[in-house]
Amino acid sequence: MTQDRVERRLTAILAADVAGYSRLMGIDEEGTLAALKKVRREVVDLKIAEHRGRIVQTSGDGPLVEFASVVDAIRCALEMQREMARRNADGPKERRIEFRIGINLGDIMVDEQDIFGDGVNVAARLETLAEPGGICVSRVVRDQVRDKLAISFEDMGEQQVKNIARPVRVYRIFSPRGPACPQSSPRQRHGRCPTGPRSPSFRLKT
Amino acid sequence: MTQDRVERRLTAILAADVAGYSRLMGIDEEGTLAALKKVRREVVDLKIAEHRGRIVQTSGDGPLVEFASVVDAIRCALEMQREMARRNADGPKERRIEFRIGINLGDIMVDEQDIFGDGVNVAARLETLAEPGGICVSRVVRDQVRDKLAISFEDMGEQQVKNIARPVRVYRIFSPRGPACPQSSPRQRHGRCPTGPRSPSFRLKT
Repeated sequence: MTQDRVERRLTAILAADVAGYSRLMGIDEEGTLAALKKVRREVVDLKIAEHRGRIVQTSGDGPLVEFASVVDAIRCALEMQREMARRNADGPKERRIEFRIGINLGDIMVDEQDIFGDGVNVAARLETLAEPGGICVSRVVRDQVRDKLAISFEDMGEQQVKNIARPVRVYRIFSPRGPACPQSSPRQRHGRCPTGPRSPSFRLKT
Repeated sequence: MTQDRVERRLTAILAADVAGYSRLMGIDEEGTLAALKKVRREVVDLKIAEHRGRIVQTSGDGPLVEFASVVDAIRCALEMQREMARRNADGPKERRIEFRIGINLGDIMVDEQDIFGDGVNVAARLETLAEPGGICVSRVVRDQVRDKLAISFEDMGEQQVKNIARPVRVYRIFSPRGPACPQSSPRQRHGRCPTGPRSPSFRLKT
């Protein structure tokens, strides 16, 4: 066994991305940039700090964040999506800023401020599988949080991830404050439909 | 959702215990205590420090340790067991000090220096399922390390854990420096028999 002394740590990785970023920039470059900066300041940075996340890097359209706890990462994502849904409810649909969020957990490699490894790549892939306003997580995340938070999961099956040999089991998150469970919902059929109060969804699309 | 602000973190938990502790104490109380102190000083504390573990508590017969990385936790356990096997090889069988080790990964609660939660309870239960000289881990541990370390796992099936509703899937670790794979080994049948060098086993019993 190679005893390389690379620093490793267990971490929850949250990857976020603005859905339709290029389209939004195409409609109104300066307006979109200003709106994104406002959202970043008033929602994203605030929620990440509240849940003790650390922003690892920020591309134009979304941050990569690490959390010491996966419960904290999920809470942060839920609150971000709910706040964005609340803000988007009144504005014109074509100008909405909606995040896709992916969350994974991994024993990643750390080099100064940067993080590397399959755990990070999988988080980025989960993000691309989320709907605008939605959250996708891996199986290990579901297993760690399902008895700790009042949320439900919809199994999206196994998905292939670029450069990763094993397929990743993906789950979409539903929250008690999420969409009312339709009669045909697979969650209800499995008896896992949340029974909490039904306020506006943190997901804009069902 | 209750937004309790308890501190949480993802951590790898290693629980170790001396097999037959009471029997050893019964044979020779003072001799056993001296031998345990020597092993603790020369093997346990040393390996834990080398792999950046933190001793959370120490009962008479074994420590509870947390690691930021589950890869580090496994390496520490393998090296501890190999070193103990080497030391035990020459001494009288009835005086051997052999550890059972269990390793789990969880989003645990932290209160000052102490840690709590299912993640800790499962580690303690995994330890009781390990053979003397052996290591048992949960499924999430196997999933996190199986592509990062040259070790194999034998599926021990689902086990019930006291006060935990869901059964825990348990795996026993084999290392390339562990026992030679017998022809009838389930690991070899599945093509997962390690092919590394075969030096003395870190496990004394096969």
